[in-house]
Amino acid sequence: MAVNTTAHKTNYNKTGVWILGARGDIASTLIIGVEALKRGQVSSSGMTTEIPPTSDLDMIGMDDLVIGGLDIVESNLVESARTVGQRSGTFSSDLVKLITPELNIIDQDIICEPEASWEAGISQDNSLNINSFINKLRKNLQKFSEKHQLKHTVVVNLTSSEQLPGDSVSHDTLEGIEQLIMDNRQDLLSPSICYTYAAFQEGCSYINFTPNPGIDLKGLQQLAEQKNLPFYGNDGKTGETLVKTALAPMFLYRNLKILSWEGVNMLGNGDGQTLNDPNCKVAKLRNKANVLDSILGYSPHAGIDINYVPSLGDWKTAWDLIHFQGFLDVKMSMQFTWQGCDSILAAPLVLDMIRLSEFAARHGESGPMKHLAAFFKNPLDCEEMALHPQFQRLLDYVQAHQKNPRPMLADSCCQ
Amino acid sequence: MAVNTTAHKTNYNKTGVWILGARGDIASTLIIGVEALKRGQVSSSGMTTEIPPTSDLDMIGMDDLVIGGLDIVESNLVESARTVGQRSGTFSSDLVKLITPELNIIDQDIICEPEASWEAGISQDNSLNINSFINKLRKNLQKFSEKHQLKHTVVVNLTSSEQLPGDSVSHDTLEGIEQLIMDNRQDLLSPSICYTYAAFQEGCSYINFTPNPGIDLKGLQQLAEQKNLPFYGNDGKTGETLVKTALAPMFLYRNLKILSWEGVNMLGNGDGQTLNDPNCKVAKLRNKANVLDSILGYSPHAGIDINYVPSLGDWKTAWDLIHFQGFLDVKMSMQFTWQGCDSILAAPLVLDMIRLSEFAARHGESGPMKHLAAFFKNPLDCEEMALHPQFQRLLDYVQAHQKNPRPMLADSCCQ
Amino acid sequence: MAVNTTAHKTNYNKTGVWILGARGDIASTLIIGVEALKRGQVSSSGMTTEIPPTSDLDMIGMDDLVIGGLDIVESNLVESARTVGQRSGTFSSDLVKLITPELNIIDQDIICEPEASWEAGISQDNSLNINSFINKLRKNLQKFSEKHQLKHTVVVNLTSSEQLPGDSVSHDTLEGIEQLIMDNRQDLLSPSICYTYAAFQEGCSYINFTPNPGIDLKGLQQLAEQKNLPFYGNDGKTGETLVKTALAPMFLYRNLKILSWEGVNMLGNGDGQTLNDPNCKVAKLRNKANVLDSILGYSPHAGIDINYVPSLGDWKTAWDLIHFQGFLDVKMSMQFTWQGCDSILAAPLVLDMIRLSEFAARHGESGPMKHLAAFFKNPLDCEEMALHPQFQRLLDYVQAHQKNPRPMLADSCCQ
Amino acid sequence: MAVNTTAHKTNYNKTGVWILGARGDIASTLIIGVEALKRGQVSSSGMTTEIPPTSDLDMIGMDDLVIGGLDIVESNLVESARTVGQRSGTFSSDLVKLITPELNIIDQDIICEPEASWEAGISQDNSLNINSFINKLRKNLQKFSEKHQLKHTVVVNLTSSEQLPGDSVSHDTLEGIEQLIMDNRQDLLSPSICYTYAAFQEGCSYINFTPNPGIDLKGLQQLAEQKNLPFYGNDGKTGETLVKTALAPMFLYRNLKILSWEGVNMLGNGDGQTLNDPNCKVAKLRNKANVLDSILGYSPHAGIDINYVPSLGDWKTAWDLIHFQGFLDVKMSMQFTWQGCDSILAAPLVLDMIRLSEFAARHGESGPMKHLAAFFKNPLDCEEMALHPQFQRLLDYVQAHQKNPRPMLADSCCQ
Repeated sequence: MAVNTTAHKTNYNKTGVWILGARGDIASTLIIGVEALKRGQVSSSGMTTEIPPTSDLDMIGMDDLVIGGLDIVESNLVESARTVGQRSGTFSSDLVKLITPELNIIDQDIICEPEASWEAGISQDNSLNINSFINKLRKNLQKFSEKHQLKHTVVVNLTSSEQLPGDSVSHDTLEGIEQLIMDNRQDLLSPSICYTYAAFQEGCSYINFTPNPGIDLKGLQQLAEQKNLPFYGNDGKTGETLVKTALAPMFLYRNLKILSWEGVNMLGNGDGQTLNDPNCKVAKLRNKANVLDSILGYSPHAGIDINYVPSLGDWKTAWDLIHFQGFLDVKMSMQFTWQGCDSILAAPLVLDMIRLSEFAARHGESGPMKHLAAFFKNPLDCEEMALHPQFQRLLDYVQAHQKNPRPMLADSCCQ
Repeated sequence: MAVNTTAHKTNYNKTGVWILGARGDIASTLIIGVEALKRGQVSSSGMTTEIPPTSDLDMIGMDDLVIGGLDIVESNLVESARTVGQRSGTFSSDLVKLITPELNIIDQDIICEPEASWEAGISQDNSLNINSFINKLRKNLQKFSEKHQLKHTVVVNLTSSEQLPGDSVSHDTLEGIEQLIMDNRQDLLSPSICYTYAAFQEGCSYINFTPNPGIDLKGLQQLAEQKNLPFYGNDGKTGETLVKTALAPMFLYRNLKILSWEGVNMLGNGDGQTLNDPNCKVAKLRNKANVLDSILGYSPHAGIDINYVPSLGDWKTAWDLIHFQGFLDVKMSMQFTWQGCDSILAAPLVLDMIRLSEFAARHGESGPMKHLAAFFKNPLDCEEMALHPQFQRLLDYVQAHQKNPRPMLADSCCQ
Repeated sequence: MAVNTTAHKTNYNKTGVWILGARGDIASTLIIGVEALKRGQVSSSGMTTEIPPTSDLDMIGMDDLVIGGLDIVESNLVESARTVGQRSGTFSSDLVKLITPELNIIDQDIICEPEASWEAGISQDNSLNINSFINKLRKNLQKFSEKHQLKHTVVVNLTSSEQLPGDSVSHDTLEGIEQLIMDNRQDLLSPSICYTYAAFQEGCSYINFTPNPGIDLKGLQQLAEQKNLPFYGNDGKTGETLVKTALAPMFLYRNLKILSWEGVNMLGNGDGQTLNDPNCKVAKLRNKANVLDSILGYSPHAGIDINYVPSLGDWKTAWDLIHFQGFLDVKMSMQFTWQGCDSILAAPLVLDMIRLSEFAARHGESGPMKHLAAFFKNPLDCEEMALHPQFQRLLDYVQAHQKNPRPMLADSCCQ
Repeated sequence: MAVNTTAHKTNYNKTGVWILGARGDIASTLIIGVEALKRGQVSSSGMTTEIPPTSDLDMIGMDDLVIGGLDIVESNLVESARTVGQRSGTFSSDLVKLITPELNIIDQDIICEPEASWEAGISQDNSLNINSFINKLRKNLQKFSEKHQLKHTVVVNLTSSEQLPGDSVSHDTLEGIEQLIMDNRQDLLSPSICYTYAAFQEGCSYINFTPNPGIDLKGLQQLAEQKNLPFYGNDGKTGETLVKTALAPMFLYRNLKILSWEGVNMLGNGDGQTLNDPNCKVAKLRNKANVLDSILGYSPHAGIDINYVPSLGDWKTAWDLIHFQGFLDVKMSMQFTWQGCDSILAAPLVLDMIRLSEFAARHGESGPMKHLAAFFKNPLDCEEMALHPQFQRLLDYVQAHQKNPRPMLADSCCQ
């Protein structure tokens, strides 16, 4: 299946993609993918916006994207792409070589000022000034937009797990949050909150692929509504949780009682290393944990381990043991092993959502894009955790925007 | 959760359950289960009709069932129950002892005339007379119904895999089939076809839990419509295929292309032994094979092995390797191991369908019960192979019959 | 293969088996096993002393054993046997019923004085007097031996994991330990140290199947030498570690470099519950951890998790992921899942060692029985961690005690 | 650990390596490996001759090898190396590019005359003349040896599985075989028999890494003895069987009775494709089958499937289910999944054996090299199938040739 590298029907300007963590594993993979797709070097596997019925929407193509962003890693995209590709064996150095010119161009739009980062501000005698920090973010977005004469920009958060800030009622209103900024409350704000605030102030739609806070704050959602902007999150669903939300309903349908669902995640990438820090693991585990209870309607014994195994690199190996009870109270079990490459699983979802965010913004839709629920471990404002009804929302959304939608591949229904 | 052992609201007569294969593993487990549930010795795990919203339907209870049937195994229910329970460790001999009186009563309604079986007829100088064979079946059903003054009887096919009869246009009409019976065409008929014919002639609803032919013949469906009877099949979905139909849509949603889906089923029960005969394996594998193509819309490389491993007894161990392609054409994989006890998985489905068949018959519904699609590997008249939309049909059916249906457990939906 | 229930050739008195933790899962299973073997109700699977060449040694039979011991659980053997059997499905209540008379007789030799336990002594105003505690242990052993006119007694430690006492140079000499006892040093002694001391003082051989301290103390080994007694430990090797020590040499032979060996142990028995307490997990994990380094000669990245999963009961499920590097530095992997019942795996090892301890004592052998190395995670005074050379020691020992030893089953060697 | 790329102590001439199947997956990987090792681009992982104590033998280095051989695939080494590397992701095209000059030089010594192959001879009007076929083989070997002034040549058979020739008493003597050659008996001879005959006639040592016949014929072994040449085979042990022979003894030691050992091998390389032909599968399965019986001393239910799964390429995924019985006849199970790359596992073994063959030949040793038993599924003249005693033979061999052998890595033994 050929990828839609060009816009379908209409003629409009370019769309900006501003990535927080622009030289990380996912971002590097995404950028390599966009360029490889443009050249027809790879198939569009992994992107749901490339198959019917979603592909029938009038979405932007790969050629319409202008990519830039922030990172605290010096070096450059060519270097990080080569590292990612080699470590995980996901793409060849030949491919990186081929698209080096494009990578170098994108690199010019990646701001790298480690000394201006939140962490640097805190560690250097607590010199962090949150208001200036935000203003700098906004200025960077303005420059990027003006330089490329962008019609719209989607901001995507792909940064590492942060420590959670404290809870506060000030988070519930825009005034409250702006007051916290003025008061320079480093204990109640976080980089991701600032990214979200800056993005909305600059008229950007926003996708939070991380477990970090931001768009879950009601005050920031008010800002999005004021500015008429769409947004969604949190925490991309790429591996074990994806499988869990596809499988758990099966046990419910059959009234097979889950006695225990134990999951072990082994991974060796930067994400794994960060998550080895118990402080950073909190948000992640929180997102993973309540999935089962929500689907099943009761709380089975369940454990989730995340172990850092450096040799695996970007390849996550998850093993789950599901112990369940059937008729006559007989205990049975199921195990699964998931061996996937995190960046390879995550990057196409991000691309899908960039397209769908631009589509929503172009159609004047604002607020949480609940039709993206299937992409997240902890979808905003959505109690539905099972994968299938989540995905049905996307299908319904597509149908609402199409006159003659095609069925999902072979999905022919009998009446 | 307490099981509904008595009828909910109305007062009506008993319902007959006529089991073909009444001393087999599934039937023995079902009968033990019914009696254990009546005594409150076990929970109702495994039965979907015992949890909301399905449990809200006004269905018959365990006390309303009168069980009988056919088998070619001499011996008795107590003996076969003890054997099943010990071999698989699924229920104790204490339990069998406790309900021995009830088992002995049921045994009086199990007809065992091996010399009158189809196979015996064929092997003894081809003396098989199909018309007499059917008349005998009908007379047995009449006697059972009269003896217990049954309001309605559900016939359930739980026999072993048969050799498939030849194809014939005569199967497409009731006249055609009756002509084949008159002509004693042993090559174009089979025991299960006769069971179905006899059941409908006697006004029974019919559930085909096996891969054997019968209700898939248009001519027999005509008979059911004439008699205003509900029916459904084929081939109960209890293990590997159940998981496959829950998982395969996940790969489709994410446009993760299946490169290969290899499944190995190991089992040691009578079913496994029969399936070791390549002739009998045909129907089974046919039902398993087209599931993936139908869900995905393309035909991945896929293999299904069924190996007879005697030591496993009734415990089926299935191992599946799913090799798939993601973004940048990177190959990834998933494996699962399913360790379930076949009879324990099958028996509650049969009970669920007995209740739902009686419910349908009582409400004057006839024809294929498509709301039971989720229970079968190869649901009749239904192109939908994915588990989740299949189960949605049952939910829709329940909703159509209820004024104030409750949600599926925790299934609270966000608007 | 018929079990040797009676002594082979010689006529001698009964042998005592004094079990610390005599109503626990392993002990209950052992006792049920001994009685079932005497009656010929089960095969001798699991006991290496029942197959050649070990079975050729002139060892005691099942009829020669007199069992007694200590436990802090009130109730009785019949009750605990029924509970173990039902929870894990390992033996039927019929079997327990059958041997209830024998269980009740054994129960009369199980001392249960929770109020006199170490823990009770500590919690009650620190009233614990270690010297009295030991004297009580010794008196119990004396009574048991006199009552049954035992020729020899083997003491077996099957208690739960203890907190490790502090290190001390006093542990290195018998005088040192006796001074600690006199000084009532609860911080430097532990129940298991006292059990070992009492056993040796009473002329018993000693097997430590737990990770608890005792016979690893040089001072207690001096006592055993003085008394001319054999002993061995620590920590029975029954599951994941058993497989690890069989497999790891394979990687070494092929120069396949282990990059990471991650192991996850899930179990739901009392052992699992105790090990959920991090203090108690220390000794266990210590024994498991150094196995790989010792076999491989380098320290790969390795993790061991022990998770308490109540629904599994006595069935331990271990999953190991072995990530390794081959030719051209290519990374490959192997996984295994071990699904075994702990007590069923442990009990026959304990029986094997009781027989071999009695054999050693009868032949005047004292000190560590290094030929039992294959039975332990952390064999005393032995650097050899690989399973195969460990087992070779047992074969060598048998050969040294036999004139015409038979080969290990089919183990015919080519010259 | 640095690889020994040069000879240790002595100065001697080059050694020839004549590969049958010189452009196949294993050969390409081996050649890439030799050149990468010479350049220090990779570690010596996978080669047992590179670690103590084997590495202490005075063996030839990588620089001492001159490689040539036969193949029926036209194209060239660069092409086949690139294909192997890309398909399996085992080495980069950068590496192939780097060593292209060396590959082109080796290519000059690879004879490719498909029209002169055995198959071509048979298919073309049965024009095959076995005597001429052999003479051609001999002439090629002579030319290769003279061109490079080789001191000795090791012939290595890496061809695909052949159909087995019929049994014949003529195979048992050299005269018999030579008569079959004279009689042009295509039904009783095969290509591999001719390769072996030609190799010995030309004074070469011989390694049969395939399941094909040849050196198992007594008549050819007589020839080797006459010519004073070492040899060994059959069928390299690289995956599932390797694990099986490491694990099965564990069950024997513990008297855990194997009830069933089911193995499923999935592979997508040329080997997998050939083995899809039932005729070719015979020899392979024969080698795998008798391993268990030989180790255990009884014949458990055991099945071995080999399935061709193209998308896996050279990556073999094997899944084994081991069902076993322990104490009280309780059934337990173990599963393992092996995910290895066949060529990567095989190539270093072949290199190890080339070195050890040259060593043996140099030391005047002739006959079967039983110290190589650990490398083969079906080691010649050896009843020992367990991995550990097999490997012990290599250690014993090394010790016999060394004055001060070092221990196997950390293998410190306690006395």
